[in-house]
Amino acid sequence: MHLYEVRNRTVVVVDILRATSCMVTAFAHGVESITPVANLDECRSMKTKGFVISGERDGKKVEGFDKGNSPFEYLGDQVKGLKIAFTTTNGTQAIEKSKEAKEVIIGSFLNLTTVAKYLLLGENNALIVCAGWKGRVNLEDTLFAGALVEKLKEYLGPDCDAPLAAQHLYNLAKNDMVSFLNASSHVRRLNKLNIHDDIKFCVTPDQYKVLPKLKNGVLLV
Amino acid sequence: MHLYEVRNRTVVVVDILRATSCMVTAFAHGVESITPVANLDECRSMKTKGFVISGERDGKKVEGFDKGNSPFEYLGDQVKGLKIAFTTTNGTQAIEKSKEAKEVIIGSFLNLTTVAKYLLLGENNALIVCAGWKGRVNLEDTLFAGALVEKLKEYLGPDCDAPLAAQHLYNLAKNDMVSFLNASSHVRRLNKLNIHDDIKFCVTPDQYKVLPKLKNGVLLV
Repeated sequence: MHLYEVRNRTVVVVDILRATSCMVTAFAHGVESITPVANLDECRSMKTKGFVISGERDGKKVEGFDKGNSPFEYLGDQVKGLKIAFTTTNGTQAIEKSKEAKEVIIGSFLNLTTVAKYLLLGENNALIVCAGWKGRVNLEDTLFAGALVEKLKEYLGPDCDAPLAAQHLYNLAKNDMVSFLNASSHVRRLNKLNIHDDIKFCVTPDQYKVLPKLKNGVLLV
Repeated sequence: MHLYEVRNRTVVVVDILRATSCMVTAFAHGVESITPVANLDECRSMKTKGFVISGERDGKKVEGFDKGNSPFEYLGDQVKGLKIAFTTTNGTQAIEKSKEAKEVIIGSFLNLTTVAKYLLLGENNALIVCAGWKGRVNLEDTLFAGALVEKLKEYLGPDCDAPLAAQHLYNLAKNDMVSFLNASSHVRRLNKLNIHDDIKFCVTPDQYKVLPKLKNGVLLV
């Protein structure tokens, strides 16, 4: 990420499995705000300030936390009006690193077209920040980046080869993303946690039209 | 690169267009040694010590240098027995960053199978270091990494998603790599320099069986 200009851009933060998919699902069901928090202790301390605390480390819910990292925990009437403090292995760290950007928005397959339209109407160059796995490339975030490039290709030009590679991979995978991802290291890691339904849900495009956006360190729609 | 363990590994340095393709071509035609040098001034000073000085910056031969970065400059009897000092935008920097590895070898499509066999027979884990373009991903180095993963897939397991992504891209591109690469940013940059023949040559697998290897800072076969 240090190789890319962040400052004057609209940054799309992506952590498909599962942080940004959870965030989009939560806002679609009426959550009031999500405060991304980089570390566990800080997140835990927010419980006393009226926040629901959500968190995951290495794919698992954190002990003592109210919610974990499955999008199914953020569905339905139960989440309406909640203020959530959220910390995850990769996703919230990616938001932290993007804070110098002109705008930070949250992307997932669930709000893919909404994100694409927002970028097209906006005046800033876009930077898609794939959270990956502990800093390394992962396939699912790359596929989302490719899907976004595919939607924007008539209007925007990539300035390096990473978007092109992502676009090729997305076109290869798009007809059956779940099978394509089954070989990936992160999905193999997550499959051990029995989250096959989560994965299927997280790669389903355009379920929601919300666009979470960072304002003074807090995500709102 | 800072995310990967280098120390106990055999590192394959790759800069398909065109540093490592030149190096392999040069050794196949009898060059005695190639000393990778990270900066231009140091390289220039080696002229007085009996070295042929070769170099490129931003795809172009450096003024006053004996040779540039086209593999066709390293063919034939003319290069036999030469000691070359070599500096390039990306390739020699990647070698510099790999120096802590147990072994550093030079990979290109031109010696693909030789590299694959060496890794299979060796005892170390392999790390493929794609030089890229100024630190960023490029497609041609990624395709080589994918070709190598494809050759090793029966024997070695990837420990993250980057090798898998490269393998998918290689399988997509392998029947016509030149066309596939024509869309890439680096190739578009290089096409302006009229090096179409260089590109075609550099993506031709298994022309040579040499395996350049770093010993005390100098490449030898």
